[in-house]
Amino acid sequence: MSAPPIVFHFDFSSPYSYIASEWVEALAARYGRTVDWRAILLGATFQVTEIKSPVAYPLKREYSMRDFERSARFAGVPLKMPDNFPIPTQNAARIFWALRDDLGPDRACQWARHCLRAYFARGVDLSDPQALRALAVEFGLDADETEMLWSDPKRKARLKEVNDAAIAQGVFGAPFFFVDGEPFWGNDRRGQIERWLATGPF
Amino acid sequence: MSAPPIVFHFDFSSPYSYIASEWVEALAARYGRTVDWRAILLGATFQVTEIKSPVAYPLKREYSMRDFERSARFAGVPLKMPDNFPIPTQNAARIFWALRDDLGPDRACQWARHCLRAYFARGVDLSDPQALRALAVEFGLDADETEMLWSDPKRKARLKEVNDAAIAQGVFGAPFFFVDGEPFWGNDRRGQIERWLATGPF
Repeated sequence: MSAPPIVFHFDFSSPYSYIASEWVEALAARYGRTVDWRAILLGATFQVTEIKSPVAYPLKREYSMRDFERSARFAGVPLKMPDNFPIPTQNAARIFWALRDDLGPDRACQWARHCLRAYFARGVDLSDPQALRALAVEFGLDADETEMLWSDPKRKARLKEVNDAAIAQGVFGAPFFFVDGEPFWGNDRRGQIERWLATGPF
Repeated sequence: MSAPPIVFHFDFSSPYSYIASEWVEALAARYGRTVDWRAILLGATFQVTEIKSPVAYPLKREYSMRDFERSARFAGVPLKMPDNFPIPTQNAARIFWALRDDLGPDRACQWARHCLRAYFARGVDLSDPQALRALAVEFGLDADETEMLWSDPKRKARLKEVNDAAIAQGVFGAPFFFVDGEPFWGNDRRGQIERWLATGPF
């Protein structure tokens, strides 16, 4: 029996999720694990928990904008904060789940990385339908079919179901990991996750 | 000319401040730095920034209580979350500044470590005047004189002045560090601080 996957909740508008998305696969592989990618909407978790985005608070906003880019440099990940930030990302997330349900987790993971890099390294606005259509075409999808997917009530319901399940499990931010059921919140829990993978519970 | 000190803002009721207080001196010494300890009240910064304690939010509370102790184990620091948490810590903080102003930073730093360890390793409630008097005696101070210090309007004004200055510099949480003017928030920025000390700005 192989070890359970690292469950990785991310939001397409979360810089720390993007940074984590660039190291999580390699980290998992070093310890014989796979990664279970799960796109969520932080807006939904924030509503339940009464939390706001770190950039919604005075002082914390200025610090966070600085820390996003510094944390990316620290991790060796190219990141340039987009002009439009944060953005609603439900369309990109619905496509993620459509791909996962219809074509499997690998293709969905590729879509996630494609979109996260487009937004955080190239400044492509994922909330702009035209930009998202163009990203879909780059990815080998048909633009009209992609737009039909993200407008499909069934796909909308799927994302809501995933969000509700995440919240029910205690997810209140992103990136949010579970390793053997143990919760880890934040890109900065990388060291603790690695120790857990290497030596088990501590 | 020697390198500037690491400025270390902490709150006596902050578990992550306590963990950081156990590694900051050794880290600084490895890179030829000293530490400028500054007791603040998170309550004051929270008011200005509209932030609340992490344990004031649903879901985040449960995670944080778990993460406090796990992060301490990860850092090799003994921590047992006190029954009464969080607590108001203005009295302990006023004593810190009185010692610093009257006897110098070393004695103040010793007081900080004495109180942080008492609260987080032994469960001594720093908000209880009797417990704080007993801690002062353990520390070699006179109990009545210590209580007079924390009740002194001049000492109250001093702490308020320090808090206001911290907020004016952008401090919104604890631990909050400045290294060569660069802000770092959180016990989990230890790795970034170490890289900065080792190689300079990145």
